[in-house]
Amino acid sequence: MEVTLDIVVRSTEIDVNGHVNNAKYLEYFEWGREEWYDQSGLSYDVLSALGVQTVTVNININYRKECRQGDRLTIRSRPVKAGRTSFVLQQELYNQAGELCADAQVTSVTIDIASRTSHPIPEALRNALEG
Amino acid sequence: MEVTLDIVVRSTEIDVNGHVNNAKYLEYFEWGREEWYDQSGLSYDVLSALGVQTVTVNININYRKECRQGDRLTIRSRPVKAGRTSFVLQQELYNQAGELCADAQVTSVTIDIASRTSHPIPEALRNALEG
Amino acid sequence: MEVTLDIVVRSTEIDVNGHVNNAKYLEYFEWGREEWYDQSGLSYDVLSALGVQTVTVNININYRKECRQGDRLTIRSRPVKAGRTSFVLQQELYNQAGELCADAQVTSVTIDIASRTSHPIPEALRNALEG
Amino acid sequence: MEVTLDIVVRSTEIDVNGHVNNAKYLEYFEWGREEWYDQSGLSYDVLSALGVQTVTVNININYRKECRQGDRLTIRSRPVKAGRTSFVLQQELYNQAGELCADAQVTSVTIDIASRTSHPIPEALRNALEG
Repeated sequence: MEVTLDIVVRSTEIDVNGHVNNAKYLEYFEWGREEWYDQSGLSYDVLSALGVQTVTVNININYRKECRQGDRLTIRSRPVKAGRTSFVLQQELYNQAGELCADAQVTSVTIDIASRTSHPIPEALRNALEG
Repeated sequence: MEVTLDIVVRSTEIDVNGHVNNAKYLEYFEWGREEWYDQSGLSYDVLSALGVQTVTVNININYRKECRQGDRLTIRSRPVKAGRTSFVLQQELYNQAGELCADAQVTSVTIDIASRTSHPIPEALRNALEG
Repeated sequence: MEVTLDIVVRSTEIDVNGHVNNAKYLEYFEWGREEWYDQSGLSYDVLSALGVQTVTVNININYRKECRQGDRLTIRSRPVKAGRTSFVLQQELYNQAGELCADAQVTSVTIDIASRTSHPIPEALRNALEG
Repeated sequence: MEVTLDIVVRSTEIDVNGHVNNAKYLEYFEWGREEWYDQSGLSYDVLSALGVQTVTVNININYRKECRQGDRLTIRSRPVKAGRTSFVLQQELYNQAGELCADAQVTSVTIDIASRTSHPIPEALRNALEG
């Protein structure tokens, strides 16, 4: 399932060059992933009840176009790959003109909360990733 | 040339899980790159005087270990590749126990300030990258 | 004129205690003031064309209730006082239950962009403050 | 006891005007208060063991001078008042030239962790505030 989140670039999110800072894009994408988990019925509490947590292990992000204060951005997030314990979400950030501003592949691993070691993806999460 | 920067993790840099948030690592690495440019004698002003600016186009970051409030971190930054208009810096983040917490490859492109299009790496920057 | 801005608390805006950090409230209030200036037809560019800029000199903020991830907040901003060169905006932050979470009085001074010294409030701004 | 903390202004802490944003000063002051608690032997864990927590209820901050990237700042924090359940810390921020950039009075209340209601300041904290 692809999930979208709409946001507006705020004044404190731009840097001395007048555009959104590199690090801020990762926050935007994190907000997009939270939305994906929520709409997939897999909030932090639901996963915790299954004894697992997801941990980001790699982000590969391309910066394609500057974003500026007041820009209305749309974050699109969808799963593209699921292994035994890890999975990949593809995320894209578009501005109000429909231009691609950034895209990222985010790899996460499912871990057992108690032992802090990798754990097979639980069925509910696998269904969401493959659904 | 490899350049190091020492920092301390502050209270407002940790998230609800008690560790440094994914996006914050990119800020740390940006601080490390600023230090690399400064120690290489290539501050923003120096590059501007040459009519160029560097723009980050890709970051590929691996998250390896959690960082916590009060951790004393060392950021190491060094060039690993220089093409005609783009170059790659390798960056690593170590904690006070010498453990690798994150590493990233950051690809930047040199652009002409006026035309905003890619521009060959100026000699001063090339020397720093290959020195 | 009172201006309102609606926002949603995002995951990277909460701290280790699970609520919005003290400093973040000031960002929220800054976003609210930007909205007040915009809706008053007094964007940064408009004021610059008049040769002035506004600089915040004092913020007095009361923290009344915790805000949490996902909270839908409303920021209300309105002028309460205008002197010769300085003025005060009153701002309030409410949650989705209508509870007051924070309020602040923000005092700004109008300065001449060139000389960086205080400057009488220009008529367009005074009209907005007293309107 | 007055406690000082030295920091350096980093690139991601400045805004479009090239100076440190208003909200960031509150983060700096929070870092300064953390240092005051730590050096007073009153870390979060110590207070928790006493069943209490401190909550900020008011900050009154004066912005006096701009701070810029690379500035070496010193944050000074000292108690100025202690009531039955609340207390006030005075904080000042100086730059490398010894100029006062900002000062704030921060009022906090001691609360009982379990009931979340105000609680008399425990003796260890009172000693630190009055010592």
